[in-house]
Amino acid sequence: MKRNTFLLTLFTILFSFSSLFAQPKYIFYLIGDGMGPNHVNLAEIFTAETQGRIGYQPLILSLFPYVGFASTNSLSHGVTDSSAGGTALAVGKKTKNGVIGMDSTATVSYKSIAYAAKEKGWKVGIATSVSVDHATPASFYANQPDRGHYYEIALQIPKSGFDFFAGSGFLKPTTTLKKEEATDVHVILEKSGYKIVKGKKAFLNKDYNNQKVVWINDDPKNTASLKFAIDQDTEDMTLEDITKGAIKHLSQNNDKGFFLMVEGGKIDWSSHSNDGGTTLHEVIDFQKTIQLAYEFYKQNPKETLIVVTADHETGGLVIGNGSSKLNTAALAHQKVSQGTLSSLIGNLRNDKPNASWDEVKQLIADNTGLFTHLKVSKGDEESLFKAYEKSFVNHVNETTKTLYANDDKLAALSIKILNKIASLSWGSTNHSAGYVPVYAIGEGAELFNNKMDNTDIPKKIAQAAQLNF
Amino acid sequence: MKRNTFLLTLFTILFSFSSLFAQPKYIFYLIGDGMGPNHVNLAEIFTAETQGRIGYQPLILSLFPYVGFASTNSLSHGVTDSSAGGTALAVGKKTKNGVIGMDSTATVSYKSIAYAAKEKGWKVGIATSVSVDHATPASFYANQPDRGHYYEIALQIPKSGFDFFAGSGFLKPTTTLKKEEATDVHVILEKSGYKIVKGKKAFLNKDYNNQKVVWINDDPKNTASLKFAIDQDTEDMTLEDITKGAIKHLSQNNDKGFFLMVEGGKIDWSSHSNDGGTTLHEVIDFQKTIQLAYEFYKQNPKETLIVVTADHETGGLVIGNGSSKLNTAALAHQKVSQGTLSSLIGNLRNDKPNASWDEVKQLIADNTGLFTHLKVSKGDEESLFKAYEKSFVNHVNETTKTLYANDDKLAALSIKILNKIASLSWGSTNHSAGYVPVYAIGEGAELFNNKMDNTDIPKKIAQAAQLNF
Repeated sequence: MKRNTFLLTLFTILFSFSSLFAQPKYIFYLIGDGMGPNHVNLAEIFTAETQGRIGYQPLILSLFPYVGFASTNSLSHGVTDSSAGGTALAVGKKTKNGVIGMDSTATVSYKSIAYAAKEKGWKVGIATSVSVDHATPASFYANQPDRGHYYEIALQIPKSGFDFFAGSGFLKPTTTLKKEEATDVHVILEKSGYKIVKGKKAFLNKDYNNQKVVWINDDPKNTASLKFAIDQDTEDMTLEDITKGAIKHLSQNNDKGFFLMVEGGKIDWSSHSNDGGTTLHEVIDFQKTIQLAYEFYKQNPKETLIVVTADHETGGLVIGNGSSKLNTAALAHQKVSQGTLSSLIGNLRNDKPNASWDEVKQLIADNTGLFTHLKVSKGDEESLFKAYEKSFVNHVNETTKTLYANDDKLAALSIKILNKIASLSWGSTNHSAGYVPVYAIGEGAELFNNKMDNTDIPKKIAQAAQLNF
Repeated sequence: MKRNTFLLTLFTILFSFSSLFAQPKYIFYLIGDGMGPNHVNLAEIFTAETQGRIGYQPLILSLFPYVGFASTNSLSHGVTDSSAGGTALAVGKKTKNGVIGMDSTATVSYKSIAYAAKEKGWKVGIATSVSVDHATPASFYANQPDRGHYYEIALQIPKSGFDFFAGSGFLKPTTTLKKEEATDVHVILEKSGYKIVKGKKAFLNKDYNNQKVVWINDDPKNTASLKFAIDQDTEDMTLEDITKGAIKHLSQNNDKGFFLMVEGGKIDWSSHSNDGGTTLHEVIDFQKTIQLAYEFYKQNPKETLIVVTADHETGGLVIGNGSSKLNTAALAHQKVSQGTLSSLIGNLRNDKPNASWDEVKQLIADNTGLFTHLKVSKGDEESLFKAYEKSFVNHVNETTKTLYANDDKLAALSIKILNKIASLSWGSTNHSAGYVPVYAIGEGAELFNNKMDNTDIPKKIAQAAQLNF
């Protein structure tokens, strides 16, 4: 016992001494928007089931040596939104729903951990699969009383001095909060010394070494967000491209260090629509970002810290809706997102306003596996047929509206039936108050081993990297 | 960098050396049956809300220094039952749903960690708030091809040689698997050297030092399980009583060590009924067991390991069902479990078969807060009124059946409406495939810091305590 106490004391002394030397200087802060534990779990169970196994195939993040979970309530609500959630993760303080990087009275601006990294002489990158001015990325560089101040948020980019921004584009590049037309954000950014690079190839094929860059999509239809992974073609800009570009840009000729935040922003969007198949592919797509960070870590294990978490859970996703036999593999038949299915049905209605039930059924089958690969109950087929009649016979266009979508009723109903067959249940089309998972690997990862508050997460990163925060 | 590597190597050597001395000899393995992350989360949010705050009040287990989470699928099903789940936690191996402590062909018997503790000369206790022969406790001492072999399970108690068993009683003390009448289990246990102690006071007021004990309820109406915490009176036997008795019995004149498994067995039962208020109180009640273990740990910090987990999640509980404002505090108005409300309504129907809607409404209001404290929507009142008419006017007795209950429709509907008002959503009345949380404190707790399989948990305990397992 005495010997044990002696050894423990010796450890403590040596450990304290050692921690003076061991600090990460490459920080990856990876945020899956809306990614609750069951979102990860679903991707793992689905992967095993499509391999013909019961159980789960761990994603890379589940193999990280430290995990924890965090509460996410905001100051104003039991269920946070992405701005209060993003603010908690960026500045380590609670605020009310809707606010970006400020206190709940919107009088005090908080400093985000990205600024603390910049102060240390590190390069800083902020990247997302949605728009650069969206709540989560904005929380890392902007301070605004309302997440809807997109123009004003974008104007804070030059002030940040951060080295790299990437996302789909800007939501209101020419319209101010007061709904007045103003100088295009792109122009302001260029003038302030940021190189605006558009499109996948433009950035990846060229070197912007030592330039400050804002890299956005060149697809004018997808400036609000990148396409869902399930809908992407090879030429589409992806979150993996963005992450690859970010790592290249931040690590080139840079031995001081960097801080990179990457948001998988659309896990949340498809969860708002309760679209299980699309959500699943968003989670798997986000893993590619984690994989790239992990490969960087393997090259620099003593100097890298990767933390993966979420701002909140979206949808109240539950795996298992009655039977003990799961069938998440049914989601493999889904070929497009609910939104794209909605467009396909809309196109058919435009081309053939009186298309037959068989034609519509075929379109649904081709994109969801319903009827052809998956048995549809009589009741469910009746519901679909009624929606068909209303739409293609009576020509009444019904939609199902959620936060980021207003989809054709037939599309929403098809996805709902597919989800039911795939053993999924959703609690709502809003966020839930569920814990979010926290995963960590690398230098300082051992700090992420407990039940946290979401505001603890940036504090722990700052502690690990000794940032002034 | 070199100095750092040197120090790390030194640590490793010293740590390995030190671990020869530091081992827990008091193990608390506390299993909340059906306790998913949102079950704990709900208790924390509810506690804060009833204090008038947005946010959460951490339960003791959320303050433990190490947490992780675990997948729970069985060998046969994506969604485990309590026998395959209990077996995984007891023996560290997957089996098919329905099997206790054996392989999925039911030919090989597995050794549970409780036997490994016994082999080390430790005392062993197995305690639960349900019957002693139920799936979770049984997994620690029995090997049976089917969890329904209650008589045969109980007969394995003498063979175990364990020192302490406690629970509500036995489910089939005189009926074998073949439905034949046989010698009463209580008699067999007494003959084999176990002292059967009945009732709360009988055990707590007397000393059974150095005797092997099976401690059960003396309330003949509650041998299948203890009453739900929400329904208990002061004279009722509680899980806290059982835990207190277990610790006293196992620690008396014993400096070799002990292994104590305590199951909070009815979190699962009320979750099968989707009864949020009762579930919440079951979780809070289970915390009293954890608190007692924690107090023991504080007395013996270097020799104690507490691990808290669950065999699976039940009900697909989600906190937040649409609005970002939560109202879990509404559950404070619930005075009885759904089952007891069902009995109260049944009693009223017996006493007054033609009771008025106002009388029935008053009974519901008194026990749930609906109408008096909580606004009921027009649609919900109509549903209740229809169920009332069917029951008290047309005298048709409707029930809602779930795994452990068959409750009056009016009672089930009232609880459903209360849950909706309290911002809860449930995915099903079965278990889900959700991760379960794992919490650890004490010597060896640092092993419980990652994403695990449920079968890893007993292996980690064995590793910490160097049990032959």
